[in-house]
This record gives sequence, C-alpha cells and structure tokens, in this order.
Amino acid sequence: MRYTRVSVAGRAVWGRVGERDIELLSESPLDATPRRPHSERGPTVIGAVPRTDAVWLPVVVPPVFYAVGMNYPRHIRHAGAEVPTRPEVGYRANNALTGHRSPIVKPAEVTGRFEAEPELVAVIGRTLRHATYEQAREAVFGWTIGNDVSARAWQHQDRTFWRSKNSDTFKPMGPWIETDVDALAQTTTLRVNDEVRAAFPTGDMVFDPFDHIVEITRHITMRPGDVLWMGAESTCQIEPGDTVDVEISGIGVLSNPVHPEGNSA
Amino acid sequence: MRYTRVSVAGRAVWGRVGERDIELLSESPLDATPRRPHSERGPTVIGAVPRTDAVWLPVVVPPVFYAVGMNYPRHIRHAGAEVPTRPEVGYRANNALTGHRSPIVKPAEVTGRFEAEPELVAVIGRTLRHATYEQAREAVFGWTIGNDVSARAWQHQDRTFWRSKNSDTFKPMGPWIETDVDALAQTTTLRVNDEVRAAFPTGDMVFDPFDHIVEITRHITMRPGDVLWMGAESTCQIEPGDTVDVEISGIGVLSNPVHPEGNSA
Repeated sequence: MRYTRVSVAGRAVWGRVGERDIELLSESPLDATPRRPHSERGPTVIGAVPRTDAVWLPVVVPPVFYAVGMNYPRHIRHAGAEVPTRPEVGYRANNALTGHRSPIVKPAEVTGRFEAEPELVAVIGRTLRHATYEQAREAVFGWTIGNDVSARAWQHQDRTFWRSKNSDTFKPMGPWIETDVDALAQTTTLRVNDEVRAAFPTGDMVFDPFDHIVEITRHITMRPGDVLWMGAESTCQIEPGDTVDVEISGIGVLSNPVHPEGNSA
Repeated sequence: MRYTRVSVAGRAVWGRVGERDIELLSESPLDATPRRPHSERGPTVIGAVPRTDAVWLPVVVPPVFYAVGMNYPRHIRHAGAEVPTRPEVGYRANNALTGHRSPIVKPAEVTGRFEAEPELVAVIGRTLRHATYEQAREAVFGWTIGNDVSARAWQHQDRTFWRSKNSDTFKPMGPWIETDVDALAQTTTLRVNDEVRAAFPTGDMVFDPFDHIVEITRHITMRPGDVLWMGAESTCQIEPGDTVDVEISGIGVLSNPVHPEGNSA
C-alpha cells in the first residue's frame, strides 16, 4: 500500500495512492498516540483526487526527524572519514520539509557546491523503547524517499548543520510511504534533468535502519511518524533550472525542480 | 499572563495559570497555523484544576526545537571556545521533553559528569521569515525555562549530541510561558536540593534571542510553538536523589527530581 498526504483546500489530508487517483482518508494510517485512540476500523475513504491534480505534501511531519550521516562505505572513504563502529544519528528540522514536485529553493547567498543526497527513509509506525532487532523491523510502517539537499560552504563554515542542511525547502520527502517492499534489496538512482548522476545498492549500508532503531531506543522513545533518513552513497551538484529525481526501485520517484531564491514561479 | 499545558484524563490541555488554580482552555493561545484558523475570540475557559493537583506537561511540543550553544561569555571562556561572531543554532529532540515536577532519569550507562544547564527559552507566537529585530521582538509569545541536561562522556564520545543531550527526560521545560516579563533583565538561579549552585544575569548573552531570530529567519521560516533555548552561563552536577530547580526571576521555577534508571517511583 502507498500512503501520502496531499493539500486539499489548504488542509493536509492523508491519502492512499492508486494508479490514477489518490483516495482521501479520514485519519492517519499510522498508529495513533494513546491520547487519540486509533479507531478499530482504521481510516475510511472520504473522497478522491486525480494524481495529476494532486498537491503533494511531505508524507509526514515527524515528531522527531532523525538523520544518519556516514553510513555508506564509499561515501565514508570519499569524505576521508572513519567507518563508524556503532550506529549514531543526528537531526534535521521540520521547517525544511517540502513535498514531491515542490521547488527546492537555492538561497541567493549560497556559493560553492549545492548538492542533492538521495536517501532511503524509514517511517516509524509504533511507539517503541528498548527494541530488539525484530521489534525494530515490525515498528517500521513503511518506506519513503528523501533528498538531503546540502550547501557545502555553509556546512564547512558553521558550527552546526542549521542552514547548510535545514534552510527552507532543503528536505524534499515523498512521494509516498510504500508499506510493501524489501527496501534494502533495492537500487537508489539520482537523476538530474533525466541524466543518471549516481546509482547504488540501497542496502549497502554500514548499519541498517533496524540496527539504528535498536541503538536509538536504548535511550530514546521512538513514536509513530518519526522518520529516519539513512544517508547517501553519492551526491551531485544541482542548480536552478534543474529537475532532480531520486528513485528507489520498489518505492517510487521523488522529483523536485530547483528554483533560484526570489523566483516564486 | 501565564500559559501551560497539563494532563487531564490522559489528554494534553492548555491552561492559564492563576494563584491557586489552572483554568483549562478550549485551544492553544498561540497563533494557529493557516490550516486551522484561530477563532476571533481566542481560547475560552472550559474548566479548572487546582495547581497542587496539576500534572504539568512540557509547555509546548515544538514544530522545531532550536538550541543555542555557546552564548554566555563566562561559559565560552570556561569551555576554552571562541566567542561566536554571528548567531548560530543547533537542535534538540522532542522525545527528550518532560514537564515541571516530572523526573529526570539518569541512564544506568551514564558515567562521568551528568549536569544541569539552566536556560531561558523563547516561545515563538507567529509565523515569520526575514524578520527585522523589531519583528523578532513582536514574534516572541512569551518566555519559559529549560534545563538542558547533559551527559558529558557521551557528549565527548559521540559524533552528535543525540544521546548526550536528547535521551528521554533530558529536556525539562516549564512550568509555564510568562507573557509579561522583560526576560533579559532577570536573574537565572540554579539550585540543587535548595542549595544555590549558580546564579547569573539572564541577559548577559553574546547574542540575544532577537538577534538569533533575525539570523535564523534569513533562511528559515519560524512558526508558532517553535522554541529557542538560549544557552547557560553555568552548570552543575546532579545525581539520582537530587531535586534540581531552575529559577528565572519574573518567570518562575522549573523543578525536577532526578531518578536512577529502572526506578519508576
């Protein structure tokens, strides 16, 4: 099943994605928190919109937005970094999220390399703490795609990743959450203007998503809607005027145009 | 005015804090997002609970949780760090938030210094981007208190602050949002078991909250409910069995007991 969120009359509505239409749902398909009990039947269909007309939103606004840094051996060697000996995570910020087909805006002040990073994203569906590897597997509701857009000069100049990785529109996520896929057996492909710029085995990670969830939940409670971005093996330069596609086979294609700041077209 | 959130029958409810009672409110006093228009009249009173019976929650669950690191000259000198030449921010994670009077749980694995950091917190009340200093002032809905609990060994061992500063219960925030105070003219006092361990002028910052908001919103949209923790001048060791109070004059006292992991009492 494929779930997403779309904008309908200015409101965010959950949807189930079909071949031609998106069925609009009465509530989130993710397990609800104890404060808002999940109905027994789950979400019901309250309408539909054609896919061609859809205004795609980030598939979820996470309570906590986790991101793995160094996780692909080739990327680690390229960066001259050491291979991690245990799973670690950092954070990204919700302001930066944007949906499938929405523009990535390159700030006027950005100089130097402005890059796309194609990433697998795990969407958490259950509340969990002290998870086993098997519980971690069961807690992943589904998989989506992220583009960890990064301004390298800021990344090097600043004490944190605040603006290099979290400026508005720097975190496209979508187009949907795929619940039925062996995500680690897929291929990640990065294309700019339909030209392949990188392709790598999605699962060629130092530590997989479940390893990370086991480690995180030793100290931290993960909750429905939390997302875990899994890092990238390869990146590429993007510029205003480009269209950047991240495809993960078995999941879908996340596509975003790149705009210059000040151009709202 | 003092606003907070309390747990009523397992649900989070906004409240207005009086001398003896907390009046329960129909909705958040913060400006609502465009997707859920704020009623003209604002929140209405739907009940009350005595303060002595209240189960205090973190005053807000922020869309984005900003935290300033090095911001007090004495702290910077103590850390041997350089004085920042421009405002920068990092992030903390919502899972770590806990309310006034709830326990800070010291993980069994933590060795070395386990410290409290007393911080002023700005709560954002408006959506803003490209803010002027004056717009930044107007966008702060009110002020609360944070305790940026930190496990120093993890802070030094890890690539990020993920578990050193974001393990569950490491971010007490409360007891309420004070809307009518000149927050930068106050005194911050840190007490352990009623003994004063640190006291400093709250406003003795390298860059104040409005400087930070101006800088952040050059690249980032801030939204109602976002919080900005302003850093600490001094810290102190805390241990299970202690009660740690952070007082900011004109705002209030945030008080939390420290428990060992595994003790749910």
